[in-house]
Amino acid sequence: MKKLTFIILVSVIAFSTSFGQRKIVNLPDLPGYVTLKCDFHMHTVFSDGDVWPTVRIDEALRDGLDAIAITDHLEYIPKKDFVPADFNAAWKIGEGYAKTRNLILIHGAEITRKMPPGHINALFITDAALIAKDSVWDAIEAAVKQGAFLQWNHPGWKAQQPDGIPRLYDIHLKLIKNGWLNGIEFYNDSEYYPLVFNMCKQYNLALMGNSDAHGIISELYNKPEYINRPMTLVFAKERSTAALKEAMFAGRTMVWFRDMLAGREEYAKPFFYQCISVGKPYFSDEKNIYFEVTNRSDIPFYLINGTKDAPATITLAANSVTGIALSKKVKSPLVYDVRNILTGEKDVLRVEINPNQVP
Amino acid sequence: MKKLTFIILVSVIAFSTSFGQRKIVNLPDLPGYVTLKCDFHMHTVFSDGDVWPTVRIDEALRDGLDAIAITDHLEYIPKKDFVPADFNAAWKIGEGYAKTRNLILIHGAEITRKMPPGHINALFITDAALIAKDSVWDAIEAAVKQGAFLQWNHPGWKAQQPDGIPRLYDIHLKLIKNGWLNGIEFYNDSEYYPLVFNMCKQYNLALMGNSDAHGIISELYNKPEYINRPMTLVFAKERSTAALKEAMFAGRTMVWFRDMLAGREEYAKPFFYQCISVGKPYFSDEKNIYFEVTNRSDIPFYLINGTKDAPATITLAANSVTGIALSKKVKSPLVYDVRNILTGEKDVLRVEINPNQVP
Amino acid sequence: MKKLTFIILVSVIAFSTSFGQRKIVNLPDLPGYVTLKCDFHMHTVFSDGDVWPTVRIDEALRDGLDAIAITDHLEYIPKKDFVPADFNAAWKIGEGYAKTRNLILIHGAEITRKMPPGHINALFITDAALIAKDSVWDAIEAAVKQGAFLQWNHPGWKAQQPDGIPRLYDIHLKLIKNGWLNGIEFYNDSEYYPLVFNMCKQYNLALMGNSDAHGIISELYNKPEYINRPMTLVFAKERSTAALKEAMFAGRTMVWFRDMLAGREEYAKPFFYQCISVGKPYFSDEKNIYFEVTNRSDIPFYLINGTKDAPATITLAANSVTGIALSKKVKSPLVYDVRNILTGEKDVLRVEINPNQVP
Amino acid sequence: MKKLTFIILVSVIAFSTSFGQRKIVNLPDLPGYVTLKCDFHMHTVFSDGDVWPTVRIDEALRDGLDAIAITDHLEYIPKKDFVPADFNAAWKIGEGYAKTRNLILIHGAEITRKMPPGHINALFITDAALIAKDSVWDAIEAAVKQGAFLQWNHPGWKAQQPDGIPRLYDIHLKLIKNGWLNGIEFYNDSEYYPLVFNMCKQYNLALMGNSDAHGIISELYNKPEYINRPMTLVFAKERSTAALKEAMFAGRTMVWFRDMLAGREEYAKPFFYQCISVGKPYFSDEKNIYFEVTNRSDIPFYLINGTKDAPATITLAANSVTGIALSKKVKSPLVYDVRNILTGEKDVLRVEINPNQVP
Repeated sequence: MKKLTFIILVSVIAFSTSFGQRKIVNLPDLPGYVTLKCDFHMHTVFSDGDVWPTVRIDEALRDGLDAIAITDHLEYIPKKDFVPADFNAAWKIGEGYAKTRNLILIHGAEITRKMPPGHINALFITDAALIAKDSVWDAIEAAVKQGAFLQWNHPGWKAQQPDGIPRLYDIHLKLIKNGWLNGIEFYNDSEYYPLVFNMCKQYNLALMGNSDAHGIISELYNKPEYINRPMTLVFAKERSTAALKEAMFAGRTMVWFRDMLAGREEYAKPFFYQCISVGKPYFSDEKNIYFEVTNRSDIPFYLINGTKDAPATITLAANSVTGIALSKKVKSPLVYDVRNILTGEKDVLRVEINPNQVP
Repeated sequence: MKKLTFIILVSVIAFSTSFGQRKIVNLPDLPGYVTLKCDFHMHTVFSDGDVWPTVRIDEALRDGLDAIAITDHLEYIPKKDFVPADFNAAWKIGEGYAKTRNLILIHGAEITRKMPPGHINALFITDAALIAKDSVWDAIEAAVKQGAFLQWNHPGWKAQQPDGIPRLYDIHLKLIKNGWLNGIEFYNDSEYYPLVFNMCKQYNLALMGNSDAHGIISELYNKPEYINRPMTLVFAKERSTAALKEAMFAGRTMVWFRDMLAGREEYAKPFFYQCISVGKPYFSDEKNIYFEVTNRSDIPFYLINGTKDAPATITLAANSVTGIALSKKVKSPLVYDVRNILTGEKDVLRVEINPNQVP
Repeated sequence: MKKLTFIILVSVIAFSTSFGQRKIVNLPDLPGYVTLKCDFHMHTVFSDGDVWPTVRIDEALRDGLDAIAITDHLEYIPKKDFVPADFNAAWKIGEGYAKTRNLILIHGAEITRKMPPGHINALFITDAALIAKDSVWDAIEAAVKQGAFLQWNHPGWKAQQPDGIPRLYDIHLKLIKNGWLNGIEFYNDSEYYPLVFNMCKQYNLALMGNSDAHGIISELYNKPEYINRPMTLVFAKERSTAALKEAMFAGRTMVWFRDMLAGREEYAKPFFYQCISVGKPYFSDEKNIYFEVTNRSDIPFYLINGTKDAPATITLAANSVTGIALSKKVKSPLVYDVRNILTGEKDVLRVEINPNQVP
Repeated sequence: MKKLTFIILVSVIAFSTSFGQRKIVNLPDLPGYVTLKCDFHMHTVFSDGDVWPTVRIDEALRDGLDAIAITDHLEYIPKKDFVPADFNAAWKIGEGYAKTRNLILIHGAEITRKMPPGHINALFITDAALIAKDSVWDAIEAAVKQGAFLQWNHPGWKAQQPDGIPRLYDIHLKLIKNGWLNGIEFYNDSEYYPLVFNMCKQYNLALMGNSDAHGIISELYNKPEYINRPMTLVFAKERSTAALKEAMFAGRTMVWFRDMLAGREEYAKPFFYQCISVGKPYFSDEKNIYFEVTNRSDIPFYLINGTKDAPATITLAANSVTGIALSKKVKSPLVYDVRNILTGEKDVLRVEINPNQVP
């Protein structure tokens, strides 16, 4: 029974206390922007999820997130015999809880239809109940009226798109034309959809990456190779709801899951260079100079297709310093492909790694 | 058989390669100094250790160390029927290997006698064979002639000091008088000796903390609560052998094992403040203001004995951000004892944690 | 959205499927009995817990349990603004789910009052709604009428018993006299109450050990030293609800948490001997014989106070074989105290470990 | 310094002690045979390995092995400037150490030549020095004279066989004809060579699987997916050196690494059926019966290509019980391929899984 604990907690808060910790996720800011770690898609017992809304907030703190949206289904409420439909329940329960813990909670809901248009998250809304309309177009219009950012979820989900290939249907194109579709999930849970890159580039939409968690995050992503849950990195002017929203509408996002980053080159390139630093040579012998590359991020980088006579591949492990022996025969700059930073459906980031030579 | 692998490796190095990674240990520098992570006591098959010298270097990189000393016993060579005594063997094998990997390898040896004086590590020597003398005094004198820093090892080790209480014998006092004893182990393996703090303060010696590893580091310190092996943090003017030596003779050290730091207040206080940052209030309600304390180090800090009406205790978890609800009734600065930063045999560091108020 | 997944799942079940796995917990049966691993105290969103009832069943399978009771509070329903009180909700949701997964789900409820009598779990009930009475005595009587096994929860919980000392109040004694109180929690969550041993012995009640989980089991017990959650081991005639109930009323239980077992000697002794086997000597030299002790259980055993000239202490690690060198001088049987098997408030089990000599 | 510790250890042994534990590896015996877990290929500082021989024995106990062979190279002694060549050193150091710990240590050496014949381990020898001959044929003959079991190592190792395809050269065929080649490595370190299956079947040789460890086992195989190091499972009449040797010459082996087992069907089939047990139905409803399959081994089994209307795939997780819902429409026996039990270069084991019906 937590009754007394709860009472004690409340009164202790009244007389000062400290909360649980938010983990530091090592990802750099971009010049002029702060990098917000976000997950904009998850469920609770108010639709088909397994947990109470405060669990989602505690999980987010533990994972070091800055912002989440709880997005219970508007049309799929399988627990309604026991938990009456209340489309704003998670928001009402979570708002204050998040505020005292310095987590940005985004009011959201999932418009849940068959394909097309499939499932669409409405984010930054003010009243989910007003969006629960029979016609999907009416629902979307109601969300837009509330200033919503609309995200098309898992466009290649096989339950709705059996061949797994995302396609823009007429309704999507119409939404885009209206400026009403603002982002598409590239990552959803453990899936990703490479073609989404093309759609986002063509129509200037934000790449999104989210967990779509129904169960418990620490059980879903408990293997070391996951590093963290799937997330959307948003480059915002400051750490606030308004700045987050502005950045998302402006499409300033990258997505991250496991050891794979994806984003437009204009964000991916400075992001990579903010993660690493290249040292001056620390030693040399007859044949080689030796220098170090420091990767201060939680993401390893796999450099491949190296310049002739340079190491063909280099792994820059996360939070590590990598020593490199470079043949003195190498005169040209060291150029590499970063195998795990996607900048397009079939493109990866190309970077230079040059020892910081003493002049 | 690694023969071909070795040949391949050598030729690859000739034509560039990258080495294994050195982990980043999150510990701050002090103003004007770089913090070098060091372990000055370990063994190999050249005395009673279980591994080849290069293993010690690989282990050090994996643990994120800047410097190690391999200190095989001069007088205890139990493997000599199979491995002939060569007091400089580890140095000869390791010197080049360490150089190409940017690890500072200190030439060392352990003078291994019964108490008094017990075991003494000679560090920064040039030829261990010249130190292998019958008389302990001759041995020490030979080491000093080579410019050695002398460290008294595990002064409370029960095999030599059955009551576990470190004592300065005449020979130690004589060494100190000569300026020949320069540091004492406060941590050795899993033991620590609180009284060493007094000795080091009284005679201005460096506090030392080392693994004294005979077996395999990753097996000896494989539990999460160990965080890392025992180590000596040295505050050096730069990352070089010479600067390291200067700092050690000057006594600019702290020691770290598990979640316990120890060092003089003049180092411990700025070290703590470099680890943490205190934010502006991010929220307030009728009763409280809410602010965050960020601990960017790998060491958690346990704040206790808090100011009246402030949280009585606060845990600043490692690499985490801690939210604090502070009663508006609290008008005085927030003062805490840091339970796990020792500044003397029975003293802990006292710190202030005040929200960075908007003026 | 799990809608389609759910539909697919259902149809797949219709056409055969396999469920998630139940971990094998290595604990022996007793002669004539099967050892059922049980947790009789936990909460869901239907009182002050954080999860849906099916989560409790999935957790139980993952932990290798045979039986659980979900015991939401009857009098403390803090989520009732969003989740209407339904005292039988967890049972209704979980019954079929548990059946298809071969987990014994016990219908239960927690009668939640101030001390005395404190909190009492009614187990093996048929309708929790009928137990929700104003008077605690009426509530208990209603439970008994349904055939309930009554368990007094956390009798030394400081929120109700500030000095932490469990006490039998008049109402408890009256319940015992009526045969209505059948067990007392020795373990609750991370606490244990040694004095409960005396009460259970004096009045022939069952020792109980339970998690009282409100949050998520895999997060609450995620450290290696926990081994598993707290649990009650019940020695039943077969693996069925009826046999479980019979065994509990007969008091045939032990309790387990971390590396500590507790139970009456009549169960603890055969349990220990079922866990281990002692081998014939595999080697001998001038001074010693060498033999092995195999511990096939998930619990380590710490043997202390060994017979003269025998090893003073022996650790029989879990799921391991321990080699023992025994001096030939030892003529008497090897007798040890098992430090982590409690058989009374201040008693531990005494055992013999003798090599299985060739005749 | 371990001097005193060592002395204490010795005297304690004289007066009884207990050694470190040998982990229990959950793998069944076959009818009439005991399954010995073995690794017949590893190195120490006496050739190009990194550790002292006793480390290999400690590692083997920790991994739950029954037998190991230390097989230092006869022709490749890169550390000889510091460690003089002594081909029997590891045996001399390890023999007594292994005996008191009940580990079977096999005297071995690696004949290390270019391809053909490549590298050949001589196992169960009596004096490695007598095998160090210039001519490889002389070396092999000398080993055979000592009664050696000869194992061809890593036949597809790219350093010797650049296309990775194992080939029997004339010398191998000649050895086979003489009855002098007795086994071939199917697993070596992290590699495996499917074609070895054909060679072993055609010429009736033992399949072998070994670590070929040079570094530290706990660092080489420290990921959960490895489960354990590569090993050879030998089906011996008893746990003794002689019985092990007899079984190996008789070819009664399987090999195991990660979650992949390989061996002839005559061993693989009973091995699988000893690992699992199939229960009686525990529940049934309109459409299905429900039954459990228990896998008491450390190896998961992946059943695929299931009978029509039965689950298409079933994962029997290690040390777990799997529940299965089986459509009542299924009338024929349930037949599956076990994807991770190889019985030939391209074959997997086919098994039946039928609920143990009440008659």
